[in-house]
Amino acid sequence: MKTFCTTRPLRFGDCDPTGIAYFPSYMNLLVGVTEDFFTSLGFGWRELAKNHSVVTPTVRLDVTFSRPGFQDDRIDFALSVVGVGRSSLDFVHTASVEGQLLWRAEQRIVATSAQSHRACPWPDDLRAALTTHLEPDNA
Amino acid sequence: MKTFCTTRPLRFGDCDPTGIAYFPSYMNLLVGVTEDFFTSLGFGWRELAKNHSVVTPTVRLDVTFSRPGFQDDRIDFALSVVGVGRSSLDFVHTASVEGQLLWRAEQRIVATSAQSHRACPWPDDLRAALTTHLEPDNA
Amino acid sequence: MKTFCTTRPLRFGDCDPTGIAYFPSYMNLLVGVTEDFFTSLGFGWRELAKNHSVVTPTVRLDVTFSRPGFQDDRIDFALSVVGVGRSSLDFVHTASVEGQLLWRAEQRIVATSAQSHRACPWPDDLRAALTTHLEPDNA
Amino acid sequence: MKTFCTTRPLRFGDCDPTGIAYFPSYMNLLVGVTEDFFTSLGFGWRELAKNHSVVTPTVRLDVTFSRPGFQDDRIDFALSVVGVGRSSLDFVHTASVEGQLLWRAEQRIVATSAQSHRACPWPDDLRAALTTHLEPDNA
Repeated sequence: MKTFCTTRPLRFGDCDPTGIAYFPSYMNLLVGVTEDFFTSLGFGWRELAKNHSVVTPTVRLDVTFSRPGFQDDRIDFALSVVGVGRSSLDFVHTASVEGQLLWRAEQRIVATSAQSHRACPWPDDLRAALTTHLEPDNA
Repeated sequence: MKTFCTTRPLRFGDCDPTGIAYFPSYMNLLVGVTEDFFTSLGFGWRELAKNHSVVTPTVRLDVTFSRPGFQDDRIDFALSVVGVGRSSLDFVHTASVEGQLLWRAEQRIVATSAQSHRACPWPDDLRAALTTHLEPDNA
Repeated sequence: MKTFCTTRPLRFGDCDPTGIAYFPSYMNLLVGVTEDFFTSLGFGWRELAKNHSVVTPTVRLDVTFSRPGFQDDRIDFALSVVGVGRSSLDFVHTASVEGQLLWRAEQRIVATSAQSHRACPWPDDLRAALTTHLEPDNA
Repeated sequence: MKTFCTTRPLRFGDCDPTGIAYFPSYMNLLVGVTEDFFTSLGFGWRELAKNHSVVTPTVRLDVTFSRPGFQDDRIDFALSVVGVGRSSLDFVHTASVEGQLLWRAEQRIVATSAQSHRACPWPDDLRAALTTHLEPDNA
């Protein structure tokens, strides 16, 4: 297992009138984390769309929020690959502040044709890269 | 069961570079739908916070996306109350276009003290209003 | 002059931790108002991009904010066309609540090729439609 | 003059269906840059609100967009303080990619009471910090 880790500040603009993080802003941050993970593999989404006509929509997302996040929190994201299918990819994400879990998400994305919006196989070299991230128990 | 229904256009600004709805924008729309439901009961979130010191964060959200949404789609939201606890409230949401399901979400929110960020009971009159929306099978 | 008017609720998700409207959310609302104006002319942006390869980026925006907006405000937008050039289009927007001005914006957008990202002329029939909205003093 | 500089990636979620940056997302980034500037002075907005009851709404914003930004661009922001009044603060911002200007903004924010939403003087120590950033020509 090679967990992909990155940190994001929780900004003023991510918080709501009750003074805590607005959960759609968390989702926006989460998309950015997933995007950075692909870029770290050498398959940035812009290139993936341009060169392979593959886009990566989310088809399933289950989130459990344990603690509120506050403005100025530094959120540590950890992304683990827990499944690689023909077209699907399963992640577990955690978002923590100073070692305390804020929320945890299970996410499935699916390789999808940019033209037909139908599922398509992952390009072989991307699949190989994704598989090296797969947790040993699931490999 | 009294389903709360409302329609939202999917705008240019809700869509991503692949030309379909950006799912965090869906979540922003969903929060607005839930907000409008509370307002329809006579308990707008602003008043609820000011008069009762109660805020309504999401603690659990499970979403399944079936079809992509496109710019100019008119999304029909349907919100059903499927559980009313001491502090919790469970919804099932559907988002459809012309009778075709785009996505379905199960959401739990929790009545929370605006000061302590801890769970607190729903105000009695709000609980009464919520209960009238509860599906008969769950009442 | 035919002013294009539309009303938008200011929602929980549009407000910031200080309890007033977050100005980037205002800008998101403004884009939606401009989009609805084009749709009202029969030139929705999706069709304009698909059929004419024309997109409408903003090149100039000057905004003066006079009063804060609050959650649950109903914002009345009024859009006036004050100039139609070969590729450019100049708007004046006002955003008001119960007759009180919240903010005023001058915006220039430019007809742009979706491929080259260079300015291009407005399609003739769209230009004709835009011109009927032009204030008499500027016609 | 001490320009405050910071870099932001332009992400998938910041771009619109035409494939370029969505300008309200630029404004969201801009708020974050201004927020980081205050934090760099030792006056984070959360503390400023809590300890001084001062919030910092924008009252004027003029933006000129010169070039489109694209997904994966790394945007270099440069913030200059060009005026410090009793309650007001004037910035000039530039956003560039690889030395090419994307857009330039003039922004005025005003120290405002979190309670009354009226202008109030900058706290003395914050004003002193802001003044050290003032361009010599304007000091």
